[in-house]
Formats: sequence, C-alpha cells, structure tokens
Amino acid sequence: MTKVKKKELPIILITNDDSIYAPGIKALTEAVKDLGRVVVVAPDKPQSGMGHAITIGQPLRLQKISFLEGVEAYTSNGTPVDCVKLAVDKILHRKPDICLSGINHGANHSINVIYSGTMSAAMEAAIESIPSAGFSLLDFSMEADFSAAKNVTRKIAIQMLAKKKEKNLLLNVNIPAVPESLIKGIKVCRQANAKYEEDFIARTDPHGKMYYWLTGEFVNFDKGKDTDVWALQNHYVSVVPVEFDFTNYALKEKIEKWKF
Amino acid sequence: MTKVKKKELPIILITNDDSIYAPGIKALTEAVKDLGRVVVVAPDKPQSGMGHAITIGQPLRLQKISFLEGVEAYTSNGTPVDCVKLAVDKILHRKPDICLSGINHGANHSINVIYSGTMSAAMEAAIESIPSAGFSLLDFSMEADFSAAKNVTRKIAIQMLAKKKEKNLLLNVNIPAVPESLIKGIKVCRQANAKYEEDFIARTDPHGKMYYWLTGEFVNFDKGKDTDVWALQNHYVSVVPVEFDFTNYALKEKIEKWKF
Repeated sequence: MTKVKKKELPIILITNDDSIYAPGIKALTEAVKDLGRVVVVAPDKPQSGMGHAITIGQPLRLQKISFLEGVEAYTSNGTPVDCVKLAVDKILHRKPDICLSGINHGANHSINVIYSGTMSAAMEAAIESIPSAGFSLLDFSMEADFSAAKNVTRKIAIQMLAKKKEKNLLLNVNIPAVPESLIKGIKVCRQANAKYEEDFIARTDPHGKMYYWLTGEFVNFDKGKDTDVWALQNHYVSVVPVEFDFTNYALKEKIEKWKF
Repeated sequence: MTKVKKKELPIILITNDDSIYAPGIKALTEAVKDLGRVVVVAPDKPQSGMGHAITIGQPLRLQKISFLEGVEAYTSNGTPVDCVKLAVDKILHRKPDICLSGINHGANHSINVIYSGTMSAAMEAAIESIPSAGFSLLDFSMEADFSAAKNVTRKIAIQMLAKKKEKNLLLNVNIPAVPESLIKGIKVCRQANAKYEEDFIARTDPHGKMYYWLTGEFVNFDKGKDTDVWALQNHYVSVVPVEFDFTNYALKEKIEKWKF
C-alpha cells in the first residue's frame, strides 16, 4: 500500500477569538490534528465580543510561532475575521477543506452568535464557501475541562469532512459544561429567542467622572424544546446551522406594500 | 386645540459608526428632527468595519455635547452597538420608538451588512424590539451630497413611525450616489449573493518586517433583479428587511440526518 501523501490530506484551518494562547484552541487542535494538515491562524490577544469586526485603518501582521508538533501556526494582530482572510489569502493561498473556530471559553448559543468573534470567524470562512463551524464550551474558566468538548469537536469535524460538499455549511456548536458521561448526545437545534437585558454598572473615577461597565442578565423568551438553550440546559450538545443571507423574506412581503 | 406636549412625541434614537463628527449623522438628524424628540448617541471616533463588536474588557464613557439646536446629543468611547445599549439603559431609561443609524459614508449592501457598524447598531436596537433602520449613501467622500439621502431617510422614518408595531422591523437602506432627479424610487429587495474577493497588499516596514493592508474586489455572483445590488446599479434606493434569527432552517433538516 502506498503511503498517503501529506499534500493529499485535507487542509483544516483553525482559529478562535480567545487568542492562540487560550487552552481552547490547543484542545481543538489536539482533537483533529490527525484528520488532515492542520494550520492555525489566531489572534495574538483575546478578541471576545469582536463580532464580525475587520481591520480597515491599520496594517496587519503575521507571525509564525511554535505551537503543537506537526502543526503550522501563526498569530496576527487582527480580529478573528482578519485571521481567516489572511490565512486563505497569504498563508494557504487556497481555501482549506474546512475551518474550525474555538473552542471558545464560554457560551455562544442563541443571540450570542452575533457578538461572538468565534462564530464570526467561522461565518467569514463560510462566506468564502469553506465548510465551517464554531465550537464553544459553557465554561469561562481558563482551567476548564475540555475532554468532552474534544471528543464532540472531533466527531463533528469528521462529519464535516465527509459532507464538505454541502453548500453554505456553517454550524454553531455549544457544549454543556458537564462531565462527558452526563452528555446525552448531539442535538440539531434552532437559535433560541433569547437576549441580554442590559444593565451597566456606573462608577466614578478618581477624577470625579462617571464610567460604565457592561453587564446584563440573560433572558430566554423561548419555550421551544427545539432550541439551543433548551438542549444545553438538558445536557445535549447543541448544533445550530447558521444562515448568512440575512434577508427577512416574511417581512419583505409586508414592506413591499408600504407607501413610501 | 391643546399643544402636543414634548413628552408625547415619539423618541427617535440616532447613532452611526462614522462618529458624531461625520456629516452623515448631521444630515440624518436634520432630516427627521421635527418628527419627534431626537436623541443622538454616537461614537467619538470612526468605527467603520466594527461589525457587532461590544466592549467587554474596558469601561465606557458618555459625554454630553452640543450638536444641533433642540437635539440632545452624547458621544461614547464605545462601539456603535455599545452606543445603542448605553442610550437605552443610561440615557433614555426606556426604549425609543424607533432607532435610525447613519447616514453611513459608503455602501452597506449585500454581505456588507455583517461588517457594518451602522447596521450592527440598528440590529442591536431591533434585538431590543425597537423598530430600526440603517442608512448608507454610496459615496465615501466627507463632502458627499446628502440632499437626496435626507429626503429618502425622512420618508422611511415616517413610514417606520406609522408601522412601528410591526414585529422585528429592521431595514438596511442604501441610497445610490446620484442626483435626486435620477433616483427612480424605493425598491424592497433581498440581500445579493455578493462578496469581496480578498487581496492584501504586502509591504515591508523600515525594520524589514512584512505588514498587510486589507483590500479586495467586490464580486456580485447574483444575477437576480430583486437584489439590493441590482437596485442600486439601476438608481433605485434599496431597502432590505434584515433577519436576526440566523438559523438556517433548510440546512437544519439536512444536518438532522447526519450520524454523529
């Protein structure tokens, strides 16, 4: 039997928003590194909450670094979306077979999909026609246990490689922070209708001026059992397929009747 | 006849991503300031391309400033999305009747909706159940002629106030950069399937290190005459109703059959 040549392996691009130094991206890389040629391009500092930000008015840098054995890795001073753009255009010089983002430290279910740098990186890849997924573990701790999340990520990556011809493949995967033995399975869901009820904490600085810290309480308005929030509360891994044609077609029909 | 009390007027929240000092937000405010009590809360510096970024790790500031006569105005060091959150929670202490974002200097049609700070601010308000719209003029110049855009914005704002009970009302409005006499009308559209083919310009700094500037060519893959790109090319104002349940329901049905 002839040996499979390295260049025939699928290319797996890995990124995140917590920076290349976060345990989550190491866990993700370890989980899939034997499935293909893995290339990591990730921010050089945490970029949580960056959403789909891109860098227009500043130059971007790329720095090759040592990461895990057998894995090519770079950091960039840009946003998660910048990392994907740079990876395709300046490192790989082609589209990878799949793009995996994460594993994020903290939840990206429901409306969080739009604030999340993790999901924005995956969405950017999907816009580029690259099958993509963002992974998040519902544990903010830097000492979080990623063992269950690694197994989930690997299972989903294997399916994605098998189904990579599926058009507009973009998944938002969240993993409950419970021991693996308590995870009931992987559930395909819709985005829950939930949001943050904002509250800012107001403080006064030493110069007598007010400043505010964003905080807020998560509120789920959705009673459905087919949502990501329900799945996670019931110890399932949630997988939400994500759309990037944002047209609201139902509303379009109504607005067409408006008299401007 | 009794005089209408100021407090009975609808509250119109205005924001943008080009900063409070950009001509576009002044044009928008002038266009609608007699339609209600107008409150402006906008970034203190340009925030183009910020997408749905929020500020988590830094405190936020609010500064009351003079703007236009009869208009309460504030700047913030935060992103466009932060401005909307702060306005509702710390300035208005209630939801405004509508939120208008812009007028952006430059196009936000097609996939640009996800990179745009202008549209992210409008989307944030819509998530808060506030009828919202983002407005963009297809002219990057700081000396752009906003006269046609002002009339369009006013017409749409009047309709939005009349239809403010419509659920999940969120509009992406783009205005072609042509004299008003050449504008053929307002067209309700879907988001075109178009994107940027990325290219970075690579340069070497004085210390011998490479850096990259994001650039890219806009490519429209969509032949439809019902898209925002077609409308704008044909001198129509485009209005795309925007969705913020990002679930891809068609893909969901397929993924449910995957074997994990």
